[in-house]
Amino acid sequence: MPYVSPPSDVARDHAAKRLAALATPPGALGRLGDLGVWLAACQGHVPPRPVDDVRLVIFAGDHGVAAHGVSAFPPAITGAMVRTFLAGKAGVNALATAHRVAVRVLDLGVDDDFADLDQATRAALTAYKVRRSSGAIHLEDALTPEQTTAALAAGAAVAREEIRAGAQLLLSGDMGIGNTTPAAALVAAGLGVPASEVVGRGTGIDDQALAHKAHVIDSALRRAGARAADPVETLTALGSADLAATTGYLLAAAQDGVPVLLDGLMSVACALTADRIEPGAAEWYAAGHRSTEPAQSLALAKLGREPLLDLGMRLGEGSGAIAAVPLVRSAAAVLRDVALLSDLGA
Amino acid sequence: MPYVSPPSDVARDHAAKRLAALATPPGALGRLGDLGVWLAACQGHVPPRPVDDVRLVIFAGDHGVAAHGVSAFPPAITGAMVRTFLAGKAGVNALATAHRVAVRVLDLGVDDDFADLDQATRAALTAYKVRRSSGAIHLEDALTPEQTTAALAAGAAVAREEIRAGAQLLLSGDMGIGNTTPAAALVAAGLGVPASEVVGRGTGIDDQALAHKAHVIDSALRRAGARAADPVETLTALGSADLAATTGYLLAAAQDGVPVLLDGLMSVACALTADRIEPGAAEWYAAGHRSTEPAQSLALAKLGREPLLDLGMRLGEGSGAIAAVPLVRSAAAVLRDVALLSDLGA
Repeated sequence: MPYVSPPSDVARDHAAKRLAALATPPGALGRLGDLGVWLAACQGHVPPRPVDDVRLVIFAGDHGVAAHGVSAFPPAITGAMVRTFLAGKAGVNALATAHRVAVRVLDLGVDDDFADLDQATRAALTAYKVRRSSGAIHLEDALTPEQTTAALAAGAAVAREEIRAGAQLLLSGDMGIGNTTPAAALVAAGLGVPASEVVGRGTGIDDQALAHKAHVIDSALRRAGARAADPVETLTALGSADLAATTGYLLAAAQDGVPVLLDGLMSVACALTADRIEPGAAEWYAAGHRSTEPAQSLALAKLGREPLLDLGMRLGEGSGAIAAVPLVRSAAAVLRDVALLSDLGA
Repeated sequence: MPYVSPPSDVARDHAAKRLAALATPPGALGRLGDLGVWLAACQGHVPPRPVDDVRLVIFAGDHGVAAHGVSAFPPAITGAMVRTFLAGKAGVNALATAHRVAVRVLDLGVDDDFADLDQATRAALTAYKVRRSSGAIHLEDALTPEQTTAALAAGAAVAREEIRAGAQLLLSGDMGIGNTTPAAALVAAGLGVPASEVVGRGTGIDDQALAHKAHVIDSALRRAGARAADPVETLTALGSADLAATTGYLLAAAQDGVPVLLDGLMSVACALTADRIEPGAAEWYAAGHRSTEPAQSLALAKLGREPLLDLGMRLGEGSGAIAAVPLVRSAAAVLRDVALLSDLGA
């Protein structure tokens, strides 16, 4: 697997100097200034180029744990929402259209054969399908080692397709009833913390279901045992096809030097896992929106990333990342288009 | 002066029902959902219309206090920055171009005759000029009562020009070295709190200058005395031509039923003053960005408004409001374009 090179120190230094030389009071651009410097370092270009071509890939999959009382919704919603994405009628579609973000949805492990879809749509949707659903992680491994390898490779291939097609900024989104359970387990394994610290309400479970969800995660962590020390084995034991593919996608973005704007818990759990596989990968990632899931904040703190937005959204789908895309564009614009003090004085 | 009617309760209720009926988990859109409901109530239209036509007016003016050690920058910067706005090279221009926001800059009280500008540009810039600079508020009134009336009327006229031309969302911006001193004084007067609670570092003064600035504000409040109980007399005693015009602009937006996205301290101090003149005006205002100035947070809390962004920006110019414009568009998009659960089930 290729080594992850860090964003350019030379470009970062040059961009920081440009930021300090703009015709604005020192520090007046706040985090927009810092974000612009990070973007320039990722691009290796000062001032940063406009971020016109932004692409979101939604990795969809079902989860065995969804049959075990960890979600407020039934598993059949996963396939229904995939169809809603394809119809362009979900929250993420509305946001993507408003902010010129391309959306691609992929079935990595949905428990549905999508036989009702026309053949071309179905072929594109399922081109990287690894299996139907994933194992209930408190009872069995989510994946076989071969499936983990295939899902990681699928995500990487997808990232490279999008990069070759022109992506300047990549986003990952998720769809899968029950997916906050394996995602929280990935974070617990990555940080070495118990289920009680990572468990959250997902789309809205009550106190009793929350306690049960913590128990499921604890059982899964005990079952995984020492394998949780290895990030790829963690995906096999505790992840899913969609989460392993998301990890491969984020890792390939870092390897190929394309910046990423992270979404909620699933995106960040996979970013943490990618950074465990290739330390330093997370330097290519910025955080879009703070999730209400505690595991997301814990993982972001570990990665040294602070979300740009905190609007109480908990829709998933990539929506929190898309909502923050205009801030990345704002950051590029100020570092690129504001006059230098020296030019005004001339 | 026309009475301020509140945003439509009927539209608000209808929009809240639509939000609850979207094919998203309850509450999953977080503050974007609330913002969309507010927008629909302001428009009197469900789902809310797209917010394409957004206009920022920057009210520029100098302040007598700037000669008395309250700012990190010399007063001549005000005129220089006005020229930078006109040249399209300031921070606010970069953001406005990136997010399709129209920018208009008006000289209400800059201590400069702009004789170097071509005649048409100068005529447009100074069409509503009230005076050169404003009184140093710790020593004398900022304005005469007639000038306050003229500035309020100027701001209202400008708002109505922009509304007639198609504005769907209005923003106010500021430029004026020293302007956080009178703006903080307006907030202190409006909330009945001492200078120590409202004083902030503006573009970056040190501890000694901060203490001096608090002393200037305290002197101004003592000088204004009981007049601070009346919002218009507050503008005369403690404001400035640009701040009175901003107040008139925000008030006219509320009177004419056009929503406003507020910026930093100057914008919010004037929103507070507008709401004192016509209670209820602030229902037409949403808050874009949290300022590092404590007076802005105090005034927003009084108005019951929570900023959408908190990125540590302290540039002024309207930049914090523009940075938040995409969130208003996001809110409109989700409430308008996401499928209803009932449509998916059909």
